[in-house]
Amino acid sequence: MARVVVDVMPKAEILDPQGQAIVGALGRLGFAGVADVRQGKRFELEVDDSVDDATLERIAEELLTNMVIENFIVSRVS
Amino acid sequence: MARVVVDVMPKAEILDPQGQAIVGALGRLGFAGVADVRQGKRFELEVDDSVDDATLERIAEELLTNMVIENFIVSRVS
Repeated sequence: MARVVVDVMPKAEILDPQGQAIVGALGRLGFAGVADVRQGKRFELEVDDSVDDATLERIAEELLTNMVIENFIVSRVS
Repeated sequence: MARVVVDVMPKAEILDPQGQAIVGALGRLGFAGVADVRQGKRFELEVDDSVDDATLERIAEELLTNMVIENFIVSRVS
């Protein structure tokens, strides 16, 4: 068994209204000094050792990420 | 300016129906060997150097995480 993390974030050129809402809320709550927030998704997968990197890329690309507006990074953590 | 990542994941004892839906979809799509998926959130923050670790913990705990059902990890990435 291996643990894999897939981080999915909105592309840099895509507006992120959730992140902007958090920036606004931080200001109203009195937290100064936070210039920008982007919100994405994190997936933690438990996979058999038979699952290779190419398959993980396909899983991330076809199921976990909307490639029109998001990018992903696959990392094996153990 | 510093970059900070806050990872927010459902606690181990909390059911994660989104993750389970992904496990089911992977099986139907023909991807074998994925035993478990947990879905959480990833926040990328740009903060002034004046923002200390204690403040980042408070931001994560009070605004980004539902402490009843989620845990968070704060990491400075640069």
